[in-house]
Amino acid sequence: MKQKRFFLSESEIPTQWYNIQADMPNKPMPLKNPKTGEAMKAEDLFPIFAQECSRQELDQTHKWIDIPEKVREMYTYYRSTPLVRAYGLEEALGTPAHIYFKNESVSPVGSHKLNSAIAQAYYCKQEGVTNVTTETGAGQWGTALSYAAKVFGLEAAVYQVKISYEQKPYRRNMMQVFGAQVTPSPSMSTRAGKDILTATPNHNGSLGTAISEAVELARTTPNCKYTLGSVMSHVSLHQTVIGLEAEKQMEMAGEYPDEIIACFGGGSNFAGLAFPFMRHIFSGERKGTRFIAAEPASCPKLTKGRFMYDFGDEAGYTPMLPMFTLGHKFAPANIHAGGLRYHGAGVIVSQLLKDGFMEAIDVDQIETFDAGMLFARTEGIVPAPESCHAIAATIRRAKECRETGESKVLLFNLTGHGLMDMSAYNQYLAGNLMNYSMSEDDVTASLMKQNMI
Amino acid sequence: MKQKRFFLSESEIPTQWYNIQADMPNKPMPLKNPKTGEAMKAEDLFPIFAQECSRQELDQTHKWIDIPEKVREMYTYYRSTPLVRAYGLEEALGTPAHIYFKNESVSPVGSHKLNSAIAQAYYCKQEGVTNVTTETGAGQWGTALSYAAKVFGLEAAVYQVKISYEQKPYRRNMMQVFGAQVTPSPSMSTRAGKDILTATPNHNGSLGTAISEAVELARTTPNCKYTLGSVMSHVSLHQTVIGLEAEKQMEMAGEYPDEIIACFGGGSNFAGLAFPFMRHIFSGERKGTRFIAAEPASCPKLTKGRFMYDFGDEAGYTPMLPMFTLGHKFAPANIHAGGLRYHGAGVIVSQLLKDGFMEAIDVDQIETFDAGMLFARTEGIVPAPESCHAIAATIRRAKECRETGESKVLLFNLTGHGLMDMSAYNQYLAGNLMNYSMSEDDVTASLMKQNMI
Repeated sequence: MKQKRFFLSESEIPTQWYNIQADMPNKPMPLKNPKTGEAMKAEDLFPIFAQECSRQELDQTHKWIDIPEKVREMYTYYRSTPLVRAYGLEEALGTPAHIYFKNESVSPVGSHKLNSAIAQAYYCKQEGVTNVTTETGAGQWGTALSYAAKVFGLEAAVYQVKISYEQKPYRRNMMQVFGAQVTPSPSMSTRAGKDILTATPNHNGSLGTAISEAVELARTTPNCKYTLGSVMSHVSLHQTVIGLEAEKQMEMAGEYPDEIIACFGGGSNFAGLAFPFMRHIFSGERKGTRFIAAEPASCPKLTKGRFMYDFGDEAGYTPMLPMFTLGHKFAPANIHAGGLRYHGAGVIVSQLLKDGFMEAIDVDQIETFDAGMLFARTEGIVPAPESCHAIAATIRRAKECRETGESKVLLFNLTGHGLMDMSAYNQYLAGNLMNYSMSEDDVTASLMKQNMI
Repeated sequence: MKQKRFFLSESEIPTQWYNIQADMPNKPMPLKNPKTGEAMKAEDLFPIFAQECSRQELDQTHKWIDIPEKVREMYTYYRSTPLVRAYGLEEALGTPAHIYFKNESVSPVGSHKLNSAIAQAYYCKQEGVTNVTTETGAGQWGTALSYAAKVFGLEAAVYQVKISYEQKPYRRNMMQVFGAQVTPSPSMSTRAGKDILTATPNHNGSLGTAISEAVELARTTPNCKYTLGSVMSHVSLHQTVIGLEAEKQMEMAGEYPDEIIACFGGGSNFAGLAFPFMRHIFSGERKGTRFIAAEPASCPKLTKGRFMYDFGDEAGYTPMLPMFTLGHKFAPANIHAGGLRYHGAGVIVSQLLKDGFMEAIDVDQIETFDAGMLFARTEGIVPAPESCHAIAATIRRAKECRETGESKVLLFNLTGHGLMDMSAYNQYLAGNLMNYSMSEDDVTASLMKQNMI
């Protein structure tokens, strides 16, 4: 019988994260203080983030960073996650491609987000922090942070993008089960929220607005730190446990991926799977591996956005980040992949895209659910709407292999399950889902309206 | 670092199921034809069930039954499931007990039900059946059957208990994602449904009523077979893959369970975990292992029901089964553990309880959710309301160990996750959950009202 799933023993779970910044030929440009225009130092980030996370954020020197023993112990609650050969999907597609996926949906909270939540909550606890706050879109990051906070005895306050708060009540309940306080964003409880709601009544919220609220809470509350589920370089660092495991597991399967595919919101799951494999490109050990980020056609920052300095949040509380962006006041369409409704890309990924180490494609909503349905019916796992983007991109590539007859090895990241998103599938089945793609002209018009160009 | 999870390699996944009937000192009494009073033969079951399932149902001879290769291949999609040491829960309880759980919630459909769904769908396909039908309570069995039917190219029609259909729309959506037709039961689409709805308008439904509808559909539709998620002996047989795996995994952990604990609806998850361990009691190889079934206090067939011949369904379409029962017209309270809202116990388990090989306890709803909350916050997994019964029973036992100082080894079955049941947790958090325990007198009164005694 052909082997379906590959696991590592607990002793094989990585002991270090991979810091790609140390290896990049062109380092990311610095984060800048919006008032002075000066490059930020780690200390400048201490008021917002845990100190260790702040240091990791700007570390361009250390290639390997030790995973604290307690973090690694919590990883054993669900890691290694399985690497899975998608025989069912391959058969349905009639493709000669070998399709593998890293199944991060098996984490207790249902997504890869826990990999960084545990690390961030751990560092906060170590540094004497008592309260953590964050934003969440679809709720995957918020759930992860809520559980991680509970593990380390921290209080958690989560601002959830309002449209997701309403669309996905089960996610909110799950955060509450883990003991977190959940507030729909924009809310009237922060200055940022009030400003947004006065300027735009009935604002649906976005990750950008929720970040503003959480950052404000962290800044104005003693002993409270902000945590982030993507975009930042230290989050990507923590997520490299995915790719490091996958590398060993692909070896167990006796193959090496030709193409590595992940969905793209802020970049952390893409980074987590791709970066460890990309290090062999930097070292010259491997050539030709393709790294493909799949973003929503309604939020096409990588394929149609501009590389420039921009804020990470709507209110402009964060440092200026050098990134591909649609503008920090961009309000994404209400697609179900709430975790991908973000205007910018992390600084590392932005640099890598500029330097041609990776590529990006955009996929419209209905194609992503077509892909998710096929995956559910062939592999049995109902995927998160975010993950459906990676599946759709993989299916496109697998179909190309069917045309060319190539047995390429495709590896994608199944970031999470869609069990909290069944209402989205319900809409799909009822034929009520919509597409929302943006053209180059739409993006230009939006950037002009925001006075970004 | 202490090992948290234990997996088997795919080659170690059992190749045979364990048929406890061959080993029982007192065999289960026969199923009887309600009209003639005669013992049923396998052929008598062919009109309803797949032939191979019918033969397995009455097989008291073959101790080991081969798992078909294709079924075993589908098992590799999620098996082995992990055996997990609940360090987090142990620490929170301050107990010297060693708590293990078999995590069946990692199956693609979120519960152990898939173990039998795959087998039943496979046999149907082999025998040329094109349509399958079934009932479902909370939706776990219905989801499993829907997916298994899709895998083997069968059409599935599922009658879902109305109260669950309304409480858990995500479950219904999930069945639809897998391509099944879902109807709330009692419905007006069958004779049985019409009779029930005319006698009791606004009937909330129960597994008993839904079974009647599904059996009727199977009987009146050419090439359509009925499948069942619990109660029947062939279902328990398929579930023994759980205990057979757990036995090998406990060996990896270097321990042997003193007490084996499972929640109880019709008996299949209890059987699946317990029977393989019980065979060492029959053989005399082991002594003193306790087998504990945890049932809802609102549906206490094992602790307060009567052993007698009764129907498996409300309308009286099934054979007469010798079992502990609350009467086939018993309407259980609307607890969230929909999968445990069933009036009777499988015939094997009933015989084992009578013969003193196992014991039963009942737990009220709020205690089960207290347990589920603690489990979620310490182990990270939100458990299904059904599984919360096993957790509550385990916590009781672990607290006793804390009193006595004994380091007992407790093993329970985590049958499923509760991600589709977040509204129940929401009610718990809001303080709106109720208890519904039945006294001996309540049970007697109910049986008298049904003319059963």
